[in-house]
Amino acid sequence: RASQSRTSQPRAPRVITSLTNERVKAIRALDMRKERRETGLFLAEGTSILETARAAEFVPQTLVYQAGSASSLVARLLISWALEAGGEVLEVSQAVLSKLSSKDNPQSMIGVFQQKWATLPERPARGDTWLALEEIRDPGNLGTIIRTADAVGAKGIILIGNTCDPYSREAVRATMGSVFDMPLAKVSREEFLVWRASWPGDVVGLHLDARDDFRHAAYKDPVLLLMGSEGPGLSESLTRSCSRLVKIPMAGKLDSLNLAVATALSLYQIRGDALSI
Amino acid sequence: RASQSRTSQPRAPRVITSLTNERVKAIRALDMRKERRETGLFLAEGTSILETARAAEFVPQTLVYQAGSASSLVARLLISWALEAGGEVLEVSQAVLSKLSSKDNPQSMIGVFQQKWATLPERPARGDTWLALEEIRDPGNLGTIIRTADAVGAKGIILIGNTCDPYSREAVRATMGSVFDMPLAKVSREEFLVWRASWPGDVVGLHLDARDDFRHAAYKDPVLLLMGSEGPGLSESLTRSCSRLVKIPMAGKLDSLNLAVATALSLYQIRGDALSI
Ligand SMILES: [Co+2]
Ligand SMILES: [Co+2]
Repeated sequence: RASQSRTSQPRAPRVITSLTNERVKAIRALDMRKERRETGLFLAEGTSILETARAAEFVPQTLVYQAGSASSLVARLLISWALEAGGEVLEVSQAVLSKLSSKDNPQSMIGVFQQKWATLPERPARGDTWLALEEIRDPGNLGTIIRTADAVGAKGIILIGNTCDPYSREAVRATMGSVFDMPLAKVSREEFLVWRASWPGDVVGLHLDARDDFRHAAYKDPVLLLMGSEGPGLSESLTRSCSRLVKIPMAGKLDSLNLAVATALSLYQIRGDALSI
Repeated sequence: RASQSRTSQPRAPRVITSLTNERVKAIRALDMRKERRETGLFLAEGTSILETARAAEFVPQTLVYQAGSASSLVARLLISWALEAGGEVLEVSQAVLSKLSSKDNPQSMIGVFQQKWATLPERPARGDTWLALEEIRDPGNLGTIIRTADAVGAKGIILIGNTCDPYSREAVRATMGSVFDMPLAKVSREEFLVWRASWPGDVVGLHLDARDDFRHAAYKDPVLLLMGSEGPGLSESLTRSCSRLVKIPMAGKLDSLNLAVATALSLYQIRGDALSI
């Protein structure tokens, strides 16, 4: 009977106070895109966003907290979650947390997670909305867009071509946790165009030369919304791949909106009927 | 006759190559909010945003450009504009421009301008829309909101209480030039509440506890849209000052949108009928 009860004992937190500790350096290195690409890892900071990770059934490879700061219920819950899942838990000094944190007054926890990449949807259902972003450059915009796509119940986001990294610290922070909920796929322009041929509904592109008001178009379901990058907008080849081009009206001399704003207006227009208080 | 032709000769650019030059230090100091408050000045960077300043009939106190970079028509036009208006024009070395610029590869011009503050509107006309923001904290959000308010043809923005600075470099950049077009007023919560009593139309607040969908409410014109700060939302006293509370519907577990996104959705809803392609 004794031999049956070899339940794996949750490991205890490991204490680190040295700024030159190898684990500290390895976590800090995840601020570099190259390191994130090679390891497939990323950082998420703050108990609220870590709660979202837990609800989405992610498991931290590493969870870092400051010694003496883990007395709250939320903090203890997060530490148990990491230990029970076999994650590494590091109890660090204030100096170490400051080094790992992007905040001036870090009082919070940091988790290290495995990135998760989705594949392109093969059979989108009626009512599904997907969003595709061509060469988006600003991580704050990308994070905000992921948050908004989650808010309207989009099924996923396709990142096309040379885009900024949704797993950068700035992008993750701007998602407010939605990075753990929203499927993200990443493809080349060529892969996108091949796949797009089988999309059964409208592919809607926002374009300055369009003549249709985005509010007055009837979209064929399921809808794929296609947004170009900040500044240049949609490339020629992706513009041609759209079944509809629409435009957001503006007053006065302005000819463009912030990309996250334009995407939000479009997503609420497309998803409007599916949303209610 | 000779005495009649004393037209003031446009001054020539002044050449600066020293990083420790007093003018360079004074311009650099405008990155500090305290310095902007004391001098009433702010920085705007990039020829496109400087073109907007010129169109809005601002005049630069100082215009900085890199030696050898002013051969384009736009650059020469901007230099003439500054010189003819009696502004100081500084031709600087690449090292000096790098010190003054927020960009990694500055190739552009920097202008120093006088801040402009509007007063609260006394008699809003029918069809006018104003936006009021309580204690907004993120300069990127504020800049994006100024840009969006310009895009929908709002008449102005009221900053209430302890807000971030619309004239910070980050906010100005996010406005993409709209900071030169959009009237900005700044008041305490008390001043706002006194003034609000005379607002003839609806004061619409976005609030999580609201039961009305923001899309289905009929707003009484002129509309003042009131948005709370990131996170806490509208304070009690400002919530009570609203004639209508509305909410943006969301899917799933999320309970909030990015503030610039929520403001944009609300402004397009309110201003929708006034906008067309
Ligand atoms: Co979520
Ligand atoms: Co303008």
